[in-house]
Amino acid sequence: MSKLFIIKIGGNVLDKPEALRSFLRSFAAIKEPKVLIHGGGKIATKLGEQLGIESKYVNGRRITDAQTIDLVTMVYGGLVNKQLVASLQSLGCNAIGLTGADGNVIKAVKRPVKDIDYGFVGDVVPEGVSTALLSALLQQNAVPVFAPLTHADGSMLNTNADTIASVLAVALSKLYDVRLIFCFEKKGVLRNVDDAGSVIRHLPKALYEELLGQNVFADGILPKLENAYAAIHSGVKEVLIGEADDLVKNTGKETEGTLITE
Amino acid sequence: MSKLFIIKIGGNVLDKPEALRSFLRSFAAIKEPKVLIHGGGKIATKLGEQLGIESKYVNGRRITDAQTIDLVTMVYGGLVNKQLVASLQSLGCNAIGLTGADGNVIKAVKRPVKDIDYGFVGDVVPEGVSTALLSALLQQNAVPVFAPLTHADGSMLNTNADTIASVLAVALSKLYDVRLIFCFEKKGVLRNVDDAGSVIRHLPKALYEELLGQNVFADGILPKLENAYAAIHSGVKEVLIGEADDLVKNTGKETEGTLITE
Repeated sequence: MSKLFIIKIGGNVLDKPEALRSFLRSFAAIKEPKVLIHGGGKIATKLGEQLGIESKYVNGRRITDAQTIDLVTMVYGGLVNKQLVASLQSLGCNAIGLTGADGNVIKAVKRPVKDIDYGFVGDVVPEGVSTALLSALLQQNAVPVFAPLTHADGSMLNTNADTIASVLAVALSKLYDVRLIFCFEKKGVLRNVDDAGSVIRHLPKALYEELLGQNVFADGILPKLENAYAAIHSGVKEVLIGEADDLVKNTGKETEGTLITE
Repeated sequence: MSKLFIIKIGGNVLDKPEALRSFLRSFAAIKEPKVLIHGGGKIATKLGEQLGIESKYVNGRRITDAQTIDLVTMVYGGLVNKQLVASLQSLGCNAIGLTGADGNVIKAVKRPVKDIDYGFVGDVVPEGVSTALLSALLQQNAVPVFAPLTHADGSMLNTNADTIASVLAVALSKLYDVRLIFCFEKKGVLRNVDDAGSVIRHLPKALYEELLGQNVFADGILPKLENAYAAIHSGVKEVLIGEADDLVKNTGKETEGTLITE
């Protein structure tokens, strides 16, 4: 199987024009097939304020009402996604912007109402990724760029970008050797949270469990590690957690970030 | 060659929820391969007013400044395009939303400044359509839905939807028997502008030239007819001008609108 990189960037990169330009140059330079998933960034919040759309929370969880789904559809699916596509095209990378709705590539359901009605939020359907269309695009040397949106019953749905990256990685692992890369604000997973230089370069399952028993991991990184191992258990060959700046090295054999494997 | 319908709808359909729903039902029901191109509608103007973005004109021509291209990228490429995709998906039509930037499907240049600087406006490059990606999508039974946007040098560009429809029709005529359908506010081209019932059902070139000599055509329809014959001369088999409501009949042999042929 050939290699495929599935790379997720969040607001910490999107919101800084210099960091974003540098990231996009690195991303465009990757020679292997690749997929980008982007988060939202602060633009939606800023535009929402200008339009008088209030951010709504219930028990600390953000609610996506009708105005908000229109806002994020515009900003994530339109402005952010198409600006990324145009920038990548100018760098010689044949980007094609998508949401889960396009080509019904990611099937989702509107999150069922239990205690909280989250509104227009999408939960991805397990096994709901259509790999046929994606692999047709990859065969055309196109580079899918996903906005964090899905759809159900005629409505767009706000959807977690990490989740989209994971489900794409799991589905495409049937066709490719996938390395799923999460770009975040640190170099990698730290052995000592106060020492930025203590990156764990390789974290196979056995070492993870050993360190877990020693309470080495900070609270913030644990959900990321749990998600990473969930992806590994579902067939993804490698998950890498690292800094956007290190993307080039993190697509190679000797990584700067933390390479997670079975 | 198999048949392909390339259908353009404008703001007159997009701005009326009932008319749009009815149109989308008809569009989804077309069994042959098909492509949709949509215009902008009033939403961009309305949102621009809310955000304090003024519409700028020079000599009566609209200018797309930096704020305006961000606005139309959000609204046309995000809100309108993705809502159309989600609606079509709910009708069983496997829509995939695109701009000319996505997959570099439509190459364009920023309109050169002569007397007027139009700003971020795209002129499509002749022969600039990448049919490889489009036919790969059509082979996957995907239905491309185009927003009126292209790109050049890393920027998105506002682009005339009729032009996009025409260049797609010309390029895809090498692979398909194309009928290019422009949905507008009248039943078709009228022999007598004051008689809505005087639709010319079939307008081959010879009849067109005969009626042109008799000054039968109203000023408003002439540019549309000239564009239609330009497409025909460039290889498009048929151009149809008609009402969105008549879409089903206008994809058949006996049309309600005006069928233009060589």
